[in-house]
Amino acid sequence: MRAAVFRQGDLVVDTIPDPELGEGQVLVRTRACGICGSDLHAAKHAKEFADLSARSGGRFGMPADRDVVFGHEFVGEVVANGPGTEGRFRPGTLVTSMPLTIRGTMVQGIGYNPEVPGAFAEYLPLAERMLLPLPEGMDPDHAALVEPMAVGLHAVNFAHMTEADVPLVIGCGPVGLAVIAALKLRGAGPIIAADYSPARRALATRMGATTVIDPGSASPYAALEAAVTPEGFDPARYAQLFGTSPRRRPAVVFECVGVPGVMQQIMEGAPAGTRIVIVGVCMQPDRFEPFFGIVKQLSVQFVLAYTAEEFRETLDHIASGRMDVAPLITGRTGLEGVRQSFQDLASPERHAKILVEPWR
Amino acid sequence: MRAAVFRQGDLVVDTIPDPELGEGQVLVRTRACGICGSDLHAAKHAKEFADLSARSGGRFGMPADRDVVFGHEFVGEVVANGPGTEGRFRPGTLVTSMPLTIRGTMVQGIGYNPEVPGAFAEYLPLAERMLLPLPEGMDPDHAALVEPMAVGLHAVNFAHMTEADVPLVIGCGPVGLAVIAALKLRGAGPIIAADYSPARRALATRMGATTVIDPGSASPYAALEAAVTPEGFDPARYAQLFGTSPRRRPAVVFECVGVPGVMQQIMEGAPAGTRIVIVGVCMQPDRFEPFFGIVKQLSVQFVLAYTAEEFRETLDHIASGRMDVAPLITGRTGLEGVRQSFQDLASPERHAKILVEPWR
Repeated sequence: MRAAVFRQGDLVVDTIPDPELGEGQVLVRTRACGICGSDLHAAKHAKEFADLSARSGGRFGMPADRDVVFGHEFVGEVVANGPGTEGRFRPGTLVTSMPLTIRGTMVQGIGYNPEVPGAFAEYLPLAERMLLPLPEGMDPDHAALVEPMAVGLHAVNFAHMTEADVPLVIGCGPVGLAVIAALKLRGAGPIIAADYSPARRALATRMGATTVIDPGSASPYAALEAAVTPEGFDPARYAQLFGTSPRRRPAVVFECVGVPGVMQQIMEGAPAGTRIVIVGVCMQPDRFEPFFGIVKQLSVQFVLAYTAEEFRETLDHIASGRMDVAPLITGRTGLEGVRQSFQDLASPERHAKILVEPWR
Repeated sequence: MRAAVFRQGDLVVDTIPDPELGEGQVLVRTRACGICGSDLHAAKHAKEFADLSARSGGRFGMPADRDVVFGHEFVGEVVANGPGTEGRFRPGTLVTSMPLTIRGTMVQGIGYNPEVPGAFAEYLPLAERMLLPLPEGMDPDHAALVEPMAVGLHAVNFAHMTEADVPLVIGCGPVGLAVIAALKLRGAGPIIAADYSPARRALATRMGATTVIDPGSASPYAALEAAVTPEGFDPARYAQLFGTSPRRRPAVVFECVGVPGVMQQIMEGAPAGTRIVIVGVCMQPDRFEPFFGIVKQLSVQFVLAYTAEEFRETLDHIASGRMDVAPLITGRTGLEGVRQSFQDLASPERHAKILVEPWR
């Protein structure tokens, strides 16, 4: 089959062996797969990513010296049921899955694993028991957004939001936009979001942000401060509404940038008692001053991925239209265009999510 | 009155004006005051401490260019009731207080504040409404330990410990020992503690640690790993005991060292899902790799000080003997010995807590 292969630091289109199905696996024809920020990072810093993976327990292993086919945000169509499957899905069924497959009893990651091709390839060997069929009438391409949107839902769930909390989302790339969508879904308000890019601020508004800030011209933390103690803030009325009697609403800041220095900015800027949720995946060492955390009694919760239940729930939210992902799809490409798309995605003005369509 | 004054980077004994009592204040004769690790740090890095204080909102302001009398862990005896007091405490009453005073309506910190002398001086101007009389029969000197022990109780409260949690305390100086005492009080078990100093490990055991580790010869994290999944770990029995069905007990690591690099070590070593509580006060910038936090979904809670309720509760625990602080008092000095004591405290083998007795 044809695939966009990450090889020796470059993305090349090549022919690789078709997947051989193991026990319990189903052959799925890839329909579309989103390009993730982590793919860009893995391509740009392959050696560091591989080292960090190994040092942190190898759960996200990517050896730097072997071919890897990226792609872990996919939707596809069942082609054939392999040995030991129950035949639950007829050929032609549209499906998605968490980016894991199971071969007999062996669980394998998809997306950075040289043993299993990711979805920048024509076919995928998926586990029957992990497949989720698309609900009737759902736009199939929207299912490629389940994975990144589930990341947002997971982050918001980990934040244990109550309606008293005021969220601020730092960074409105796909991760930040997914967080905004999940906040809207959970009924948060106001939702403050910050990004230097006008295009991304516009997308943030479409996804549910009620206040968008350009950090180049105003402080997101001043906006947060104003929101947690709004003019005319009445502690008594607030206690009536929320059953507590604080002097201000609690703040929750979602870090969705993933580059060094942002956490320190948040710790300096955030009000006392803020819960910080780190959703952006920063792969470099970072520097910060713990004293700010101490003086303000901040908490920092690092989150990763989602649970199976959150993934399934996200599929339902998108299928039903409660989460509108259409605005996020800003481009499409065949395998030959993957390399160029990796470059295009560096510009926040042009793109949010590009779908790779291997059969295009 | 006589005081040990921090002046131009040195500790000198000098005569300073007696406190003038404001509205609602009581004159208290200092009986004893502990030397805190933060005092050592403030003396050694006065300029940095002052800068950091200013940049983080000034709550712990200490201008580098003015005389300051340290001392915020004190016990004393009421001498005279000032204007506007209710006379609730007769002269001779033994009292302690959180290190804050109130003059009219103005709240002032005690210990790093050039406007109010701390307790390395003969007298203190305390607020009548903040005074806590010592319970009948309590060893007065033990009341000087209420402040540091309350820090431990606060940290453990912030960790929301359940009996399922396995705590590891990194660093067994006064802060770590206070955390261990609070963990014991709250019924945690096992309690793992790590310190390079044999004397401090012995103290940790006395305060309630059930396993002590010398990080020079064994990994505290291996001990923690073994404790969260003990040999013969039976999830079914565990679910019966704790009402949940995880594959392991949750881990909580208390950082009680407060120097750069320790957080990174904890993030590398701790099991997935660990809650990290930062109790040590690190005043330098720190460096860490967020990826470890992300892959393991760690949380980091910074804590500071205690609430008024926790302070009062700690006094009761010490008075009743539920918290035994006697082993922590390893030295006593008059004002002339304060400078030398600051040097002696650098050696963990010799000292935990030195009490300053201004009238000695």
